[in-house]
Amino acid sequence: MKEFDLISNHFSKGGFQRKDVLIGIGDDAAVTRVPSGQCLVTTTDTMVEGVHFLAGTQPEAIAHKLVAVNLSDLSAMGAEPAWVSLSLSLPQIDPAWIKAFSEKLHSLSEYFSFQLIGGDTVQGPLSITLTAQGFIPEDNQITRAGAQAGDWIMVTGCLGDAGVGLDILKGLRQVENLEQASYLKNRHWYPTPRVLAGTTMRRIASSCIDLSDGLVQDIQHITAASQVGVLIHLDKLPISEALGENVDNLLDAITYAATAGDDYELLFTVPEEQRVNIETALSSYDIPVTCIGQVTGAVGKVDLRIDEKPFKFSASAKGFEHFS
Amino acid sequence: MKEFDLISNHFSKGGFQRKDVLIGIGDDAAVTRVPSGQCLVTTTDTMVEGVHFLAGTQPEAIAHKLVAVNLSDLSAMGAEPAWVSLSLSLPQIDPAWIKAFSEKLHSLSEYFSFQLIGGDTVQGPLSITLTAQGFIPEDNQITRAGAQAGDWIMVTGCLGDAGVGLDILKGLRQVENLEQASYLKNRHWYPTPRVLAGTTMRRIASSCIDLSDGLVQDIQHITAASQVGVLIHLDKLPISEALGENVDNLLDAITYAATAGDDYELLFTVPEEQRVNIETALSSYDIPVTCIGQVTGAVGKVDLRIDEKPFKFSASAKGFEHFS
Repeated sequence: MKEFDLISNHFSKGGFQRKDVLIGIGDDAAVTRVPSGQCLVTTTDTMVEGVHFLAGTQPEAIAHKLVAVNLSDLSAMGAEPAWVSLSLSLPQIDPAWIKAFSEKLHSLSEYFSFQLIGGDTVQGPLSITLTAQGFIPEDNQITRAGAQAGDWIMVTGCLGDAGVGLDILKGLRQVENLEQASYLKNRHWYPTPRVLAGTTMRRIASSCIDLSDGLVQDIQHITAASQVGVLIHLDKLPISEALGENVDNLLDAITYAATAGDDYELLFTVPEEQRVNIETALSSYDIPVTCIGQVTGAVGKVDLRIDEKPFKFSASAKGFEHFS
Repeated sequence: MKEFDLISNHFSKGGFQRKDVLIGIGDDAAVTRVPSGQCLVTTTDTMVEGVHFLAGTQPEAIAHKLVAVNLSDLSAMGAEPAWVSLSLSLPQIDPAWIKAFSEKLHSLSEYFSFQLIGGDTVQGPLSITLTAQGFIPEDNQITRAGAQAGDWIMVTGCLGDAGVGLDILKGLRQVENLEQASYLKNRHWYPTPRVLAGTTMRRIASSCIDLSDGLVQDIQHITAASQVGVLIHLDKLPISEALGENVDNLLDAITYAATAGDDYELLFTVPEEQRVNIETALSSYDIPVTCIGQVTGAVGKVDLRIDEKPFKFSASAKGFEHFS
């Protein structure tokens, strides 16, 4: 089978079709139209077999996670997704794999209203790169640089589930309750990009980041960019029942929640006067949100507390770092 | 060395800075502004070691070719480059490699006035994906679908050099003249994206494609999209002195020029009444252009001629196909 047949068979047909795509897959490049008054938001993420997902991971889970990771980045800026470009490096052509992968991508494009506009398919080790593009109204972007001393630190959803899920998949942890085991594994395979939360917090949140490498590590991007410090009450981190019931103790749960990463929840800061607004707005969409601390003036300081007492993680519990 | 240091050290500083980039590298996503009245043009290409470039290829050549391949796609639509996102998968961190690669990327960004706005750096097999974004005024894009019977078929530059260059590098061909050998290898390593040619042929060319897989294969995308046929005079293909003097005979030269690929010249069609316009415009920029044939009404037919006689390549001379 030729590269071109592969692409045209599985990717060029199907999925969500947008009116702002003038030329999609099938020419030298895609031509699209950004609405007047909107800025373009662009992000790229790569996932490599054995590094970002275990060998043998289902193509549906790979497609989902790749999309989720990218849409999560757009959401952290407050942007809504519009178009994606896919680069697929495959060791060989496995029609069943490609069918499952492309169908999942198409169904996600329907759900999130984005269109696949192009990409590349090459022979190589299993590795996938997605570039996602979206819109945000002029001057509405939420950066990492706007946090101010006194702002509340909030987080969507629950933290740590994906980390436990990965440990279950690696055989490092046993979870007897099958329903909970399944929930935790699915939180690793199928994270939820917080698209609606991101657009909701435009002009409300003072800064935002998505949690990919673990809260303790990721929040340092906010302290650095905003030139602030943070006080985090680790005992307030939102922990699911499935996580809490299947670890050894509360400290274990907190360690997953604070350091394991891969949750793709949004961590954001909000001024006191906006806190009720954002809580009300998110709860009207059934998006859980928890206040976990406060921004301080101690530039660069990440002050972690449990029951108000200072706490330090051991070196081995640091967030995920490539090449470390 | 941590992923973040790697990125910030080498990629976030330096290179061309554009005023339409509101947020570049260093946040969850980039925020950019597409000028009013312009459409966005997006393309993605991936290069894998051992597939798209030989193991041991200099980082400067990899960076150049990756940029050239992407800008070539933008040029084939008539677009001007604006921003690129880079995904770099590296087996290990080699500071000298990264320095050389990033410096080349920055120097290309200065030359072509694009800005690196983001990307991803992961551990994995050597593989690089670039997504390039550019602009084209509304309704100015040149697609593969506009060729009409009677239009002239033109091509920029010379064809086949990159193919011979690759064969020299693989040890399949000896070229004694060192200057010519160097020229041919550099045509493989450092192809010239025809950015100025692309923008020049807006509203003049009826269709356009860049030659990556070889003329005979690539032109079939135009015959399919435009629902036309083509008559190609293979003896008119533009062949460099270095190519002509270092192959066994004219047929050998023609075979490289028509099938070897990787030239990244633009092949375009132009109506009779526009032919002088495009020839004058391109020659004023010192861009060589050659008429190699004519569009016909025989839908799907690629009529190849040498000295007016029908000609067929042997099956082994077909253009480069992944997975074939």
